[in-house]
Amino acid sequence: MLSGIMDAIRVAAESAKSASFRLAELPLSLRNQALMRISEQLRASASSIIAANQKDLEDAKADHLASPLLKRLRYDEAKLQESVDQISSLVAQEDPVGRVLARTELDDGLVLVKVSCPIGVIGIVFESRPDALVQISTLCLKSGNAVLLKGGSEAKRTNDALAKAIKEALYQVDGRFEGAVHLISTREEFRALLALEDLVDLIVPRGSNELVRSIQASTKIPVLGHAAGICHTYIHEDADLELAVKVCYDAKVQYPAVCNAMETLLVDHHVAKDFLPRMAEEYAKAGVELRGDEATRSLIHAGVATEQDWATEYNDLILSIKVVGSLAEAVEHINHYGSHHTDAIIARSREAAEKFMNAVDSSSVMWNCSTRFADGYRYGLGAEVGISTSKTHARGPVGLEGLTIYKWKLYGSGQAVADYSGEGARRYTHRKLQ
Amino acid sequence: MLSGIMDAIRVAAESAKSASFRLAELPLSLRNQALMRISEQLRASASSIIAANQKDLEDAKADHLASPLLKRLRYDEAKLQESVDQISSLVAQEDPVGRVLARTELDDGLVLVKVSCPIGVIGIVFESRPDALVQISTLCLKSGNAVLLKGGSEAKRTNDALAKAIKEALYQVDGRFEGAVHLISTREEFRALLALEDLVDLIVPRGSNELVRSIQASTKIPVLGHAAGICHTYIHEDADLELAVKVCYDAKVQYPAVCNAMETLLVDHHVAKDFLPRMAEEYAKAGVELRGDEATRSLIHAGVATEQDWATEYNDLILSIKVVGSLAEAVEHINHYGSHHTDAIIARSREAAEKFMNAVDSSSVMWNCSTRFADGYRYGLGAEVGISTSKTHARGPVGLEGLTIYKWKLYGSGQAVADYSGEGARRYTHRKLQ
Repeated sequence: MLSGIMDAIRVAAESAKSASFRLAELPLSLRNQALMRISEQLRASASSIIAANQKDLEDAKADHLASPLLKRLRYDEAKLQESVDQISSLVAQEDPVGRVLARTELDDGLVLVKVSCPIGVIGIVFESRPDALVQISTLCLKSGNAVLLKGGSEAKRTNDALAKAIKEALYQVDGRFEGAVHLISTREEFRALLALEDLVDLIVPRGSNELVRSIQASTKIPVLGHAAGICHTYIHEDADLELAVKVCYDAKVQYPAVCNAMETLLVDHHVAKDFLPRMAEEYAKAGVELRGDEATRSLIHAGVATEQDWATEYNDLILSIKVVGSLAEAVEHINHYGSHHTDAIIARSREAAEKFMNAVDSSSVMWNCSTRFADGYRYGLGAEVGISTSKTHARGPVGLEGLTIYKWKLYGSGQAVADYSGEGARRYTHRKLQ
Repeated sequence: MLSGIMDAIRVAAESAKSASFRLAELPLSLRNQALMRISEQLRASASSIIAANQKDLEDAKADHLASPLLKRLRYDEAKLQESVDQISSLVAQEDPVGRVLARTELDDGLVLVKVSCPIGVIGIVFESRPDALVQISTLCLKSGNAVLLKGGSEAKRTNDALAKAIKEALYQVDGRFEGAVHLISTREEFRALLALEDLVDLIVPRGSNELVRSIQASTKIPVLGHAAGICHTYIHEDADLELAVKVCYDAKVQYPAVCNAMETLLVDHHVAKDFLPRMAEEYAKAGVELRGDEATRSLIHAGVATEQDWATEYNDLILSIKVVGSLAEAVEHINHYGSHHTDAIIARSREAAEKFMNAVDSSSVMWNCSTRFADGYRYGLGAEVGISTSKTHARGPVGLEGLTIYKWKLYGSGQAVADYSGEGARRYTHRKLQ
């Protein structure tokens, strides 16, 4: 049985690998044509997709799935329109493949070009939202990658219907897309995929911290993602406090369940007395539970923040607050307890802001605005496969560019390395071109 | 005992992490000053470094180390001068940190900047050559990274003397460099380091395939490197055969022990009869052992190439040869048996060359020149920490740029995400700047 699963997933991954070699050669026009055909096919299959989603929703209700999860699971006419709109915006994006990143003349008639290309085969696991299937598949196709997808079991019928529409569209456009998008049905199959480091180039988990950690622990394939979002805002001593209240309210209250919401507020001791009571009044209106250190609790009504609180992603209307003695102390706290996701400073001084933004070791650092801006759509990337807190390859919101790598192309005219060594040898010019 | 090693290495890694935060803020002038001071200190410590190397060499001779290994182990006046020259060329390189990679206006007074920054803490294990210690340390310092190094045990005294000189130089320049370069003494300590994924951001193994694979299997930290170099040259049907002979001779003979030397020659069947006898004659002069498929053996004198040969990195004066029916067959062979390192086509047709270079899934692809050019110095990167066959982060020769990543800086003026949703909301402009 287990070896049966392994064999089946290896066949799918080999087919994806073959597809990835073909995709690397397809012109942008054909990749865009495929995206537009997918969009049409989603429209044409709307009734069967939405019917499939209705059944998933009925089962989920019978299983007493929590209401926010039901909301995420829903794929109706409005969601389908969002998918179609998102594909249009993706078609409009520049080609991420074939960009010349650098050109160097090594010698007369010997030119080195660094050019972007697809990564190859990408394995993605995502939780309940079925619209993620369309978003991820189309991002991968635009960037010339083959993709193996595993969605949440509660959305199985919807995912099957969406994948069917995508595959039909690809089949109609060009035979070379065969195997480029493959839906993995079971968790066991995805686990098996994690062992195929000879065929899969990158794994992107979109889901809970537990999911990400468990995947990182069980594969040699590079994993791109984030395991936690513990975001901070630091109120500098010269901050505009009115601006600070507005931004901190948004960072905590606007959508607390997501990874870029603020979890800890750090307040410079010079302004704590002025700022904290005003801020607490606003948070009280929104029903935010506050937990503070001793200095905070001497100024406002708040519970006790423990060591544990500084390292917690609440994903809820709860906020920990600490009064700090300096910008350096704020930076140290963030680098120690944070998750390298997104951290902000509120300050009038550009110098203080730059110091904070350089010293904080996070994928996004912000000055005088809400941590909630850390997002592929808001950053103008079109869409994102996820937010990375890794220190290699891609960091922060990952869009088309994060799904590419580069290759070096060396154009010669008969040069041998031996020509460049010994007496009277040729010399490299190493002249940057363009 | 084991927990003693673990504790000691954690202390060193924590010190490197602290150093990495300080390094991220140091201006280029100070990083270059440190490099120049290291250069001076190497000169000043020359006699003790060379004496230490003499002792390592004596022990190695007593242990009957093979002569090529003895040659790699040697660190004499000439090698020291090479280190000094290499540092000068590194000082002259542009700052890899703080480069603006993209700027986008998200709205009035809300500007997103993608800017390069150091990765953080890098763990590097390298084999016998002590000059690698200087090269790697200075590459890491220039790019603002802290580094933990483990050298070969046969070069222990030399490495200790080199590391001492580097640390002394850093200490004299600025206290903020403390902990930036740390030499790890034992294999057990390096193994312990592989478990510190909370402190170490990247591992770069420079050594045998076995070393690289064993490290990849035993850490969750991203590993950059290559496990094998099975490089090919394909002779297209319209190739200039004289040019082909020259380039193929260089690719195999000039330095067969290295990863970018050619291991398999693929010859189009149209030209095999003309080309192979001429090529074999040249290889015979250099004492190259040839192993061919049946078609090859019908044209020249060669041993039998087995399935095993196509997948072997000889690192020696041995070459496997296959006659192929088309460019597509050559590409398929390379993508199946190759190691995604470096592969070349010899052809007159630019169209054929482009097709080959796009379809071959390797970090370097070449037209009408030797695979031996795949190297950081020859590519004009100044120096390299190694050659990567990974599909993520950095590919091919990895110099300063591969030791950096980026962060997103968002400069605002009080914006909240809530301003951009609902009725009458502000709209993102997403205007590319510069």
